[in-house]
Amino acid sequence: MKRRVALLIEYDGAGFSGWQRQTHEISVQQVLEEACAKLNDGAHVTCTAAGRTDSGVHAYGQVVSCDISSAHSPATIRNALNYHTRPHPVAVREVAEVEADWNARFSAIGRAYRYVICTRQARLVLDRGRAWHVSRKLDIAAMHEAAQHLVGRHDFTSFRAASCQAKSPMRTLDRLDVLQDGAQIEIIAEARSFLHHQVRNMVGTLKLVGDGKMQPARIADIIAARNRSAAGPTAPADGLYFTRVVYDPDPFSFR
Amino acid sequence: MKRRVALLIEYDGAGFSGWQRQTHEISVQQVLEEACAKLNDGAHVTCTAAGRTDSGVHAYGQVVSCDISSAHSPATIRNALNYHTRPHPVAVREVAEVEADWNARFSAIGRAYRYVICTRQARLVLDRGRAWHVSRKLDIAAMHEAAQHLVGRHDFTSFRAASCQAKSPMRTLDRLDVLQDGAQIEIIAEARSFLHHQVRNMVGTLKLVGDGKMQPARIADIIAARNRSAAGPTAPADGLYFTRVVYDPDPFSFR
Repeated sequence: MKRRVALLIEYDGAGFSGWQRQTHEISVQQVLEEACAKLNDGAHVTCTAAGRTDSGVHAYGQVVSCDISSAHSPATIRNALNYHTRPHPVAVREVAEVEADWNARFSAIGRAYRYVICTRQARLVLDRGRAWHVSRKLDIAAMHEAAQHLVGRHDFTSFRAASCQAKSPMRTLDRLDVLQDGAQIEIIAEARSFLHHQVRNMVGTLKLVGDGKMQPARIADIIAARNRSAAGPTAPADGLYFTRVVYDPDPFSFR
Repeated sequence: MKRRVALLIEYDGAGFSGWQRQTHEISVQQVLEEACAKLNDGAHVTCTAAGRTDSGVHAYGQVVSCDISSAHSPATIRNALNYHTRPHPVAVREVAEVEADWNARFSAIGRAYRYVICTRQARLVLDRGRAWHVSRKLDIAAMHEAAQHLVGRHDFTSFRAASCQAKSPMRTLDRLDVLQDGAQIEIIAEARSFLHHQVRNMVGTLKLVGDGKMQPARIADIIAARNRSAAGPTAPADGLYFTRVVYDPDPFSFR
């Protein structure tokens, strides 16, 4: 009998071409779908993710839904998937039973990302591939001030990748905080959903503010321009973490 | 002309056999000494470290002293050493000029370590090699209570490696806190100096308390036993970070 399950997963983006299946490169989707097939009498399983993260982007809290024929408990399914996904840098943190019409992408009511910037002269070692290395100090207060212009409902065309497939460029950004976290800068972004590259394009623009190359008030003009070239460059994938997907009710009761 | 310099360094312990030079394996000391020789007319340089970390132990704040003949500024020396240590996972965060009798090991008046435990069923991905993976929940309050019995001046024979070369087993532990840090457990240890394996042996013992296999009050008996076999096993190197060395005055004024 088919059952729909929700998987809470973590991965190191450096090990994959991104979430989505690619012909010549290994993706998180391929690794998970092949592991799920082992619990589905060997038949192909389609995994739907809450967010299709790009190459190099990490996840602590990606959520996936799929149908499998296993009669085992959620904990046993989790352990089996963690066995079958080895040695790839992806782990299933939790498995939950969900209704047959539940969908990791369309049932989501919120998404959260974390972006980490490390400002120092020396190259990164323990944070290599896990943060954006910027060799000069940034003005965090100015970056946070600039970020507040982005919060709210806007046409985010200036912060959207050319390849973005969303029908509308309108999004409501609920939170964009720029915080000092020890020796690092942490940027927290929360919204119901994001456009393709939206977080990285916002971070790349905030970095220009932190560098003193742009005044915080310029952000309003950039939004109004509705032109990708008005905003800053796309920040590297290394520093981006997909941290949480919000559902009501939350299928992962332990969180 | 010879100048003594202090280096503040970071490394990923997984890339090395530990601090100290080995015949057949690559050590942090070898990589640094070979880089320093490039700034010393090619002649051998001896680097002295504040703490001789074991294989697999990481460092954010190891401090090293050495003599070089370079006339360059500290910032230029830092950049040159970061060039010459590539591609090894070690970086020189800062370089400071010090007096000719200053010594990273003997001038130190305090040392701090951080130990990270990750308790969950799923194998580690983003924290692989960077934390001790324990598959069951631990009682943090009991671990912290047990840790307080270790704070103070004691004979730490029960927590000392057989290979420890220190003349005396007496040490004064200034701080041993067990804290919840998000989904992780963080243990902070501070003392003027530590015995070989002392932090890992204390953590391995606290983990038995967290597991419910040992009462916090048993720690006093273990100290009194002055017998290594009375304490718990040595915790893995993966979770240990050498975070800070204290000097008065601090040569690294930016910290």
